[in-house]
Amino acid sequence: MRLVTLDEIRAARRRIAGGAVRTPLLPCPWADDGRPLWLKPESLQPTGAFKIRGATNAVSRLAAAGSAAGVVTDSSGNHAQAVAYAARRYRLPAVIVMPDVAPDVKVVATRALGAEVILVPPADRKTASAAVADGRGYAYIPPYDHPDVIAGQGTAGLEIADDMVELGLDLDTVLVPVSGGGLISGIATAIKTLRPQVKVIGVEPELAADAQESLRRGELVAWEPARTYRTVADGLRMTLSPLTWAHVSAYVDDIVTVSEDEILEAVRVLATRARLVAEPSGAVTTAAYLFHPDALPAGRHHVAMVSGGNVDPGLLARVLTA
Amino acid sequence: MRLVTLDEIRAARRRIAGGAVRTPLLPCPWADDGRPLWLKPESLQPTGAFKIRGATNAVSRLAAAGSAAGVVTDSSGNHAQAVAYAARRYRLPAVIVMPDVAPDVKVVATRALGAEVILVPPADRKTASAAVADGRGYAYIPPYDHPDVIAGQGTAGLEIADDMVELGLDLDTVLVPVSGGGLISGIATAIKTLRPQVKVIGVEPELAADAQESLRRGELVAWEPARTYRTVADGLRMTLSPLTWAHVSAYVDDIVTVSEDEILEAVRVLATRARLVAEPSGAVTTAAYLFHPDALPAGRHHVAMVSGGNVDPGLLARVLTA
Repeated sequence: MRLVTLDEIRAARRRIAGGAVRTPLLPCPWADDGRPLWLKPESLQPTGAFKIRGATNAVSRLAAAGSAAGVVTDSSGNHAQAVAYAARRYRLPAVIVMPDVAPDVKVVATRALGAEVILVPPADRKTASAAVADGRGYAYIPPYDHPDVIAGQGTAGLEIADDMVELGLDLDTVLVPVSGGGLISGIATAIKTLRPQVKVIGVEPELAADAQESLRRGELVAWEPARTYRTVADGLRMTLSPLTWAHVSAYVDDIVTVSEDEILEAVRVLATRARLVAEPSGAVTTAAYLFHPDALPAGRHHVAMVSGGNVDPGLLARVLTA
Repeated sequence: MRLVTLDEIRAARRRIAGGAVRTPLLPCPWADDGRPLWLKPESLQPTGAFKIRGATNAVSRLAAAGSAAGVVTDSSGNHAQAVAYAARRYRLPAVIVMPDVAPDVKVVATRALGAEVILVPPADRKTASAAVADGRGYAYIPPYDHPDVIAGQGTAGLEIADDMVELGLDLDTVLVPVSGGGLISGIATAIKTLRPQVKVIGVEPELAADAQESLRRGELVAWEPARTYRTVADGLRMTLSPLTWAHVSAYVDDIVTVSEDEILEAVRVLATRARLVAEPSGAVTTAAYLFHPDALPAGRHHVAMVSGGNVDPGLLARVLTA
């Protein structure tokens, strides 16, 4: 299977400039002595998650080619708003197919970005989005299973590599949340091509550790949704695709897991010490740093990807007063 | 009175590189139609506030000159941790004089940055810090009343001007919180020198509106601490000095005020829509954007400085569930 290249990630960076925020690395004076930590706050992207990178790259290519009358995806998560936001930037119509059980707030937020939202029973999502693609000539933008999406997410890794030079950082370990694997595929490609000595470590909830099982068995393993849906990290319930598995197995050094309690404590630490509103899925890497140093490689200097910040305000309030 | 120059701010930028974070401008898709808003999140600085810029510039100059055996300041706020952090970077000993009524968490956080904390009755702060300066040969770093501090804070304005070019932004209005005036003095100097057409607007709580009264009367007016201490924006209770007043009267277009309720609502909006933990003092500019468009200049494109994020977790939780 053909893997995404560094050149494709560099081209993606040129396309997304001005569409996605060039996020800084944030030093953490509250980190453990002798184990410096930097955060990469993708929660600060305009729709609150890294997904805007891949969506913007994919939509930009379609807009430049003039090959699609619009774009369509099926998602009730961060990818939905990312596609809507990117489509508006390139003045392409966007249809987002959502399960009719999606929270109203997500529907409203996606419509506010100018997208048409079609609500269908969960089981009909794939057929409904395929019908829009066929019927209207819209291009389908998958949440992770596409080279343009992976290349877009990889721009975050390119920025980390650039910051290592600019700030004179001697990084050892980059921690990345894993769900469908788009983010870690892109980041690992960028980091391992430019800085092969840096370890790229995936982080999953214990309750959705299918990528860890895949990496350890050496073959792609999928867990049933009924199993992964138990975790509070609602952005980390997907499973790798053959394409992301090919990148993960080629580039990722290891995948570690964190518990539900550790995830919520990391949400609290990020809010109170780093002043970042992180969603549980975005906090798993900080949880791994804080609670599982022994499971991580021996290197001292860590980066934790804070992949998103779309947390329920009530949950955040409960975590802050626990 | 001699004003800080653009060259001094540019020199400060070179000094603080790697010490302060180069914060991005964050676009806000949730902003009002036709009134685009960008946030400058100084809450993401390592000690949670813009103060690190001025402190790092001042300490860097002292370290380069070799003229001081250490540094001392009196503060229980964001300036205290900024001086401690900067001193550690330049391996200078730091003494922070705090009132003995300061919350224990601030004492602990400042000591964790390697500073010596001396607790004295509030009325003795000035004499205690002067005694350390005289007795140990330490340089006193004031929170705002110094050209090096103003030049350091001005680097945030230089970054905004750079981002206007880099991102192709046609900004109209920059909103800056006002307390002692160090931040707005530096930012206004940078912006008005490079982009005189951009309006620089100060924002104060109604309960601490001494700078607004000064600007409207054309002379420096001070309010009694007993009066300004009523606001929840605990970082905005200071009064301008003759030096900052000289910059404000030369460069600032207007100063507007916000209510206590508006400040807390802006804290909520920043957490839920921009995924930023802001302290009340850091949220006043967003409050002005949200609730007082008629008091602002006619231009459409706004930047709001989010000056800090050191909010009490209990207050943040209450705001999130209100």
